[in-house]
Amino acid sequence: MTDVHVGVIGLGNVGSGALEILAGNADQIALKLGFRLRVAAVCSRSAASKTLPASLAGVARTADWREVVTNPRVDVVAELVGGTSVAREIIDAAIANGKSVVTANKELMALCGAEIWDRAIRANINLAMEASVAGGIPIHAVLREGISGDRIVAIAGILNGTSNYILTEMESRGASFEAVLAEAQSLGYAEADPSADVDGHDARSKLAILAALAFGERITPGDIFVEGIRRITPADFEYAHQLAHTIRLVCAAAQTDRGLILSVRPALIPKSTILAGVRGAYNAVWVKGHYGADTFYYGRGAGPRPTGVAVVSDLMRVAREIRSGSPERVSPFAHERLGIYQPVPITLQHRPYYLRFRVEDRPGIIAELAGILASRQISLEAVLQLPCDTKDDLPFVITVEPTSEQAIREAVDQMSRLSFLREPPLALPMEPPL
Amino acid sequence: MTDVHVGVIGLGNVGSGALEILAGNADQIALKLGFRLRVAAVCSRSAASKTLPASLAGVARTADWREVVTNPRVDVVAELVGGTSVAREIIDAAIANGKSVVTANKELMALCGAEIWDRAIRANINLAMEASVAGGIPIHAVLREGISGDRIVAIAGILNGTSNYILTEMESRGASFEAVLAEAQSLGYAEADPSADVDGHDARSKLAILAALAFGERITPGDIFVEGIRRITPADFEYAHQLAHTIRLVCAAAQTDRGLILSVRPALIPKSTILAGVRGAYNAVWVKGHYGADTFYYGRGAGPRPTGVAVVSDLMRVAREIRSGSPERVSPFAHERLGIYQPVPITLQHRPYYLRFRVEDRPGIIAELAGILASRQISLEAVLQLPCDTKDDLPFVITVEPTSEQAIREAVDQMSRLSFLREPPLALPMEPPL
Repeated sequence: MTDVHVGVIGLGNVGSGALEILAGNADQIALKLGFRLRVAAVCSRSAASKTLPASLAGVARTADWREVVTNPRVDVVAELVGGTSVAREIIDAAIANGKSVVTANKELMALCGAEIWDRAIRANINLAMEASVAGGIPIHAVLREGISGDRIVAIAGILNGTSNYILTEMESRGASFEAVLAEAQSLGYAEADPSADVDGHDARSKLAILAALAFGERITPGDIFVEGIRRITPADFEYAHQLAHTIRLVCAAAQTDRGLILSVRPALIPKSTILAGVRGAYNAVWVKGHYGADTFYYGRGAGPRPTGVAVVSDLMRVAREIRSGSPERVSPFAHERLGIYQPVPITLQHRPYYLRFRVEDRPGIIAELAGILASRQISLEAVLQLPCDTKDDLPFVITVEPTSEQAIREAVDQMSRLSFLREPPLALPMEPPL
Repeated sequence: MTDVHVGVIGLGNVGSGALEILAGNADQIALKLGFRLRVAAVCSRSAASKTLPASLAGVARTADWREVVTNPRVDVVAELVGGTSVAREIIDAAIANGKSVVTANKELMALCGAEIWDRAIRANINLAMEASVAGGIPIHAVLREGISGDRIVAIAGILNGTSNYILTEMESRGASFEAVLAEAQSLGYAEADPSADVDGHDARSKLAILAALAFGERITPGDIFVEGIRRITPADFEYAHQLAHTIRLVCAAAQTDRGLILSVRPALIPKSTILAGVRGAYNAVWVKGHYGADTFYYGRGAGPRPTGVAVVSDLMRVAREIRSGSPERVSPFAHERLGIYQPVPITLQHRPYYLRFRVEDRPGIIAELAGILASRQISLEAVLQLPCDTKDDLPFVITVEPTSEQAIREAVDQMSRLSFLREPPLALPMEPPL
């Protein structure tokens, strides 16, 4: 059988990892496929600056991606440059030239996945994007094939390794967000500008793609409520532990009576759930199906080799489809169209909440806060206060029974105007056991 | 596009679950596929005894499976009868009639998977068996597609829900094996004859299939060392906890310098590992790849609906392949052929061990046992003894540093001849953190 030829564009972490595997694992890949997957061209910004694995020494190098997408020997293009501008040009040009495409690009697929997929179907080529979400976890294969017969009703994930690393370090060592972030930056685990990670935007792009795959609707980052982890303190972990919970940046999408509710936000999750055991830079996805109940997937969220495995596995699948003449037929972004998964605002969500306050000590504080909750029909569940050295900066916690996000927001707004509060209350939802 | 027609043979738990999903989720399945998956014929032992879902009321019913595999309208046959005799006839006849096959049959695929797969390839039809291992967990899709680019170096799993339920109940309540087994039997969680579950044979079939998929060799149950959980006592959990471990029936396959070592046996695993958190009737598979490092998969091991999802997802994949004219080309049982994954005897494995003794109290016991270990160059790590009421039936534990299974077996044999032992020592390997 004739071999399938790959053009790789982008030689950063992911591109280097993919090439290492394509070279080092070539024999096993050929045995699994029944033909060879050959690298025909490699494009990097400065054509020859990075050394390729020895067995790829003869491969054509270029700094111009157009040479790859127009190369007549190339059957499938791996777009591994990231971002939304050049990457989009590359993918559009590859499709226009009849090449199949494998991409690791979460921002682009979150924003324009449905559009790109429609274009691929019209052009009779294949498209794959396993590496765009949770690098080491083959969650796309799971949703697309493994449990495709199920009707997904909810997903919950830990999709940003940096923020999970920060939270689990804060939890285990009692260190502040700022201290752990600074450490993570010096170790290279966090960017100089950490906003994409710690403010939830990276995780939001990933959740948009996962939710689109799971629910078959066009879901974009704008449909997803997002809140970062900057306000979490070591004291919050102490209170959460008292409640037999921990705190994680949870990416959640759930079908409710009111519609599909999507959020990326720090939340309390029960310590007994398997999601609570996800530590450090690991990612995880929990899926609840109407028929298959709950399944759970866990692995490295990033790294050249885990993400490289995702890219190479996609290349193998697309290569099989090219060889069998089986082009893309149905977009994973739009299989549903049953109208039952329309995104609705987070304000419709009902949850128990954890409210943490920092106040100047004076009499009547609890009475005043409880009065605001009562006036909105929010039932108080518990009041917690840990022993504290500094009498005048007391963090304490009130938990409330399930209520709407809308009601909690209104209560928090009203509370924020109280003179004894040192900062607005921190309100975190308490997620049910998964 | 024309629809794809399914013939379902077997209306037990799995067959009923699959039909419920094919009926209830038909619209979403059609949107995902771009065509309909229609049930054309159903075979059960007594043709019309079980009621089908309402939307399938018009489907042809029969008690003769030959009518299904020769039905010209049927494109794909779901073999859901189990066992190795009739099931083999059904699959062979379906393939001979040019039908693709989806099966949930672990015993048959563990014993003859490679042979059946070769037959399917020669006949140009498609074969799928997701439901044969860990019902609710799409581990086949993961190994076949999701991480196919990786080179698997080890897998470890909890693949028998009944024995995991028994062990975790013993652990949490301090109850004996016999008591929990009797309870599980009365609740319908365990069979009247529990041997397949508690002696490890069910798990061994599943590990044979998983290892074949992961390593691409012909691996049959006979290649796998098996030991059941009958000898585990509540005291073993207490000692394991002292060592920050727990005990699970671990299915393991690992590439070592000496070859591929395969076993199903109770083992100590560190409490901190994610596998230790798998409780009750859940299943889980941990996979270590040379490139992608560790990933972990978790879900229901059985049940009509989780297993039904696996069958229906397989039917969807096979239906896509039928529609695109893409027959099976490479057997998942034989992609490797690099000779690096040959099974070797468990006696070559090196591990730290946990040795538990029940003795008649007398002076010099430890000295005698330690002497036997020393004579075989086995280094003692710790001696543990919990407080005990009955002075004359003292369980106590010795842990030893990594040594070969061969050396441990010889030491245990020699110890078993000592007059003060009430039963042969229980030797459990201590698995490294996953």
